[in-house]
Amino acid sequence: MKLYSYWRSTAAYRVRIALNLKGVDYGIEPVHLLADGGQQHAPDYVALNPIHLVPTLVLSDGTALTQSLAIIDYLDETQPDPPLLPAEPVLRAQVRAAAQITAVDIHPVNNLRVVQHLEKQFSISREDVADWMRHWTGIGFDALQAVVHSDTLFSFGDTPTLADICLVAQYYNARRWGLDLTPYSRLTEIEKNCLALEAFRAAMPENQPDAAPN
Amino acid sequence: MKLYSYWRSTAAYRVRIALNLKGVDYGIEPVHLLADGGQQHAPDYVALNPIHLVPTLVLSDGTALTQSLAIIDYLDETQPDPPLLPAEPVLRAQVRAAAQITAVDIHPVNNLRVVQHLEKQFSISREDVADWMRHWTGIGFDALQAVVHSDTLFSFGDTPTLADICLVAQYYNARRWGLDLTPYSRLTEIEKNCLALEAFRAAMPENQPDAAPN
Repeated sequence: MKLYSYWRSTAAYRVRIALNLKGVDYGIEPVHLLADGGQQHAPDYVALNPIHLVPTLVLSDGTALTQSLAIIDYLDETQPDPPLLPAEPVLRAQVRAAAQITAVDIHPVNNLRVVQHLEKQFSISREDVADWMRHWTGIGFDALQAVVHSDTLFSFGDTPTLADICLVAQYYNARRWGLDLTPYSRLTEIEKNCLALEAFRAAMPENQPDAAPN
Repeated sequence: MKLYSYWRSTAAYRVRIALNLKGVDYGIEPVHLLADGGQQHAPDYVALNPIHLVPTLVLSDGTALTQSLAIIDYLDETQPDPPLLPAEPVLRAQVRAAAQITAVDIHPVNNLRVVQHLEKQFSISREDVADWMRHWTGIGFDALQAVVHSDTLFSFGDTPTLADICLVAQYYNARRWGLDLTPYSRLTEIEKNCLALEAFRAAMPENQPDAAPN
């Protein structure tokens, strides 16, 4: 499989973690979101991913899958071991909901394209951008910390799930934008437990082939 | 079951459609997003839904489920007939991805809380808000129209799926904000085919107990 990825994209980061947890052999095809006016807007890429976003996972038969959550569900359904969602329906819904606090309520609002649009249309400053990032991440983390379990290695039990995948990727972004993580000691503990696993570490932005010094 | 809902929330609209398609008996508990400083911020509600958003589905045993996509997955897993996702993994991933163009890439960026924050922090005008809504919806609909099937009753085949549920709800919002739908004739056709079904019609904002004249 081939993953179109950008090292700093938290959505691509999620899929890298999932692929690693599943033990899938894949190659990275970098899509630089800032170079060349944004390589995600190149016609060849848009043919694979019409919403102009990363990641895209191309299967061995050439099928292109988009949207990180849909890709991870696909991986979990076609390669069930180890499972990324619990089997019990209510717990499963709770894991999905926690993942969506991050992947739906935080990340899309803080997406690069949104920030670029804010800067262009409303001429907001870099400090305003940082405030914007921290504002939505903080609201999301308040909610996330209220729903994760308190006495387990990971967010929902002692094996990592989709909720942890989304948490770890969003934590990278939270640090990048200087969010004060002091109120989120439980989330920080979960991040630490995740990053003790090679599947998470190998997926980190700084360990990607397209990682840049700044 | 009891659904905490706001008539104009497209996320609540999605869950109403899914409940109706599944034939679930449920009651509506209105949460007025503008009255009383936002009833979604009331402590009793936040105890059910820590991210301060609608919808929340409360099961007969009192368990509260949040996040529209997670709720719909729960319904589909526990009450499989009629299915809201195809069984074949790639098609299933494509339906999920199409749903997420709407539910992840359009809706969260256009959410009421985001617009309220824009108005407060950057003093943007109502016309700017309308432009913001139309901008993100248009980008999303361009992508959505590129991925739906062209010769079927619904987005992916001749029975409605999660993709159609998300499309119909977002179409309500697009009309509300005056997006020119002329370029989206295929999406408009799918919306029409969906709204021919009572399950969709009964879920429409104007058919809710809390619908208001404006």
